[in-house]
Amino acid sequence: MNLPGLPPTIRWEGEETGQLFALDQTLLPETVEEVLLDRVDDAIDAIRRLVVRGAPLIGITAAYAMVLAARDLPDDLPAGQAADALRHAATRIRSVRPTAVNLGWALDRSIRRADPLQRVPELRRHLLAEARAIHREDREACDAMARHASPLVRDGGSYLTHCNAGAMATGGIGTALGVFHRAAAEGKRITVYADETRPLLQGARLTAFELARSGVDVVLQCDSAAAGLLASGAIDAVFVGADRIAANGDTANKLGTLQVAIAAARANVPFHVVAPISTFDLALPDGSLIPIEERAAAEVVEMPGRRIALPGVRVRNPAFDVTPAELLTSIVTERGAIRPVDTAHIATILRG
Amino acid sequence: MNLPGLPPTIRWEGEETGQLFALDQTLLPETVEEVLLDRVDDAIDAIRRLVVRGAPLIGITAAYAMVLAARDLPDDLPAGQAADALRHAATRIRSVRPTAVNLGWALDRSIRRADPLQRVPELRRHLLAEARAIHREDREACDAMARHASPLVRDGGSYLTHCNAGAMATGGIGTALGVFHRAAAEGKRITVYADETRPLLQGARLTAFELARSGVDVVLQCDSAAAGLLASGAIDAVFVGADRIAANGDTANKLGTLQVAIAAARANVPFHVVAPISTFDLALPDGSLIPIEERAAAEVVEMPGRRIALPGVRVRNPAFDVTPAELLTSIVTERGAIRPVDTAHIATILRG
Repeated sequence: MNLPGLPPTIRWEGEETGQLFALDQTLLPETVEEVLLDRVDDAIDAIRRLVVRGAPLIGITAAYAMVLAARDLPDDLPAGQAADALRHAATRIRSVRPTAVNLGWALDRSIRRADPLQRVPELRRHLLAEARAIHREDREACDAMARHASPLVRDGGSYLTHCNAGAMATGGIGTALGVFHRAAAEGKRITVYADETRPLLQGARLTAFELARSGVDVVLQCDSAAAGLLASGAIDAVFVGADRIAANGDTANKLGTLQVAIAAARANVPFHVVAPISTFDLALPDGSLIPIEERAAAEVVEMPGRRIALPGVRVRNPAFDVTPAELLTSIVTERGAIRPVDTAHIATILRG
Repeated sequence: MNLPGLPPTIRWEGEETGQLFALDQTLLPETVEEVLLDRVDDAIDAIRRLVVRGAPLIGITAAYAMVLAARDLPDDLPAGQAADALRHAATRIRSVRPTAVNLGWALDRSIRRADPLQRVPELRRHLLAEARAIHREDREACDAMARHASPLVRDGGSYLTHCNAGAMATGGIGTALGVFHRAAAEGKRITVYADETRPLLQGARLTAFELARSGVDVVLQCDSAAAGLLASGAIDAVFVGADRIAANGDTANKLGTLQVAIAAARANVPFHVVAPISTFDLALPDGSLIPIEERAAAEVVEMPGRRIALPGVRVRNPAFDVTPAELLTSIVTERGAIRPVDTAHIATILRG
């Protein structure tokens, strides 16, 4: 989804020898600026620095990064060597962020398309076709998730979300925020409370910005305000995205999701995860096996323009936490809602 | 408690015509600077802007502000008029921050000392004596709370706290942090996880700073990291302060305390409130009646040096939330621990 007045979060210009541009999300909301991702290393850096972020968008970016990798190989490289070079690039891209499973999922799709018997010009065409397919399918999945979630949103309702699972995290209208964008398009008047989402404030910088552009009434609050708001009875339901979902439904998502889920369960407020099939990792029986990325201390202590703690302070900065399946009311996928959330119901939907 | 190298949080210099100085906590940790609170309005402004903060310290500051009010009256003002002027000053000071009950409690003590038959010079002496008594009693209460809580802290243990309930929130070694200061002094090696405490970051700016100066191993984290840390089993107990405690034990404290308590209960981690008797408000049967201060949106959206959301965004910024008594393992007061936390046990301790 192109938000009004914004370039797309990621776009490939031209054919297989074209160029990759990303909307630099680290500069939002003050500055709207696209950056050219000229080489694979630029794409890797963009994923690491959260120029692009959100599990589905990371996957799409990785798929385009594979086109960059092929674009920059010599045309006459022997087929076996080309395939090796692409696998090497995929390995490097895969290691950048460990939690979002969509990254590895997209790279696996690209690698499957990179037939070791093909020559470089052919590989480029196939990888671009695959990246575009991943991008298009994600856009369609966002629309389908929003359609399936539509009955969960009422005119006049108030909802809570955490982080940014929106147009800026996907190739389409978003996962959790796609639900709100659709509600607004359907003419439902809703209020969405957005947790600011420390340390990098995606809720304040991206979600409040994105929902306001969609005409949704949005109220920003500190992450720590969620429990009191839920206890007050003001919230109809919580909608969040996901970075990786284990076979039993345990869900890794942005740090702070767990506390919202615990507080929602205590307040008897429905808690919905909205995520495409590509976010499931059936190889993991439960969430305890999901790798949790630990990011730099500087993200916590260095506010723009000011340190908030003295140098030398020890900092813990996990980027995600894992919400146990028992706290989820449903997981809404492009194939419909999984409810109740357990291994059997997940397997049924995923067999699809 | 004077932290090594730091001036006291509040000090009255000289006799009843002396001067009031406060450590400006808004500038910490980078800048250590005392400000002169020259007039009652300066003290009111200091309480409003959180130059001084923390329920006990607000009470002490209010008591000294009453000395300023008396100091600046003409010596020969008729006794009745002097008493009226002081009651007027108390009313103005009382309205600055609604949640911390210690503010009204200290002012009530001062007003009771301001006999309407006394002349101004006598009033000044009595009000200074009362402020000093409130200050001294708070220091002693902090020591007593830390002594009573000592068995709850083990050598090698890991603890979690939220906001700053320390030397910088009281006239002594603090409430919750006093427990840790004492543990360090007793030679216990403990690790304290400090929530940064948005929006004003008292955990990052004050708690991490204060505990490090006391030689405690402190780890800073985002508020939203608390639930995951508690679920991991790494925490022995949570200790927090309080701004107002209702007759049944429902406890208002810094925004975010509720979510920590809910997550601690789910993880079966003991959750202790450490607060002096002056923090109880037996006039309120339960926490639903505690007034919750709503502070300026700018605190949330204006990071020093950078706005984090575009102008016009709606913001919810409650400064406190209320944790229901059922989530508290104990309330530790200067008269001992209240456990279990209910109306009957609270009444027993408060009858003393």
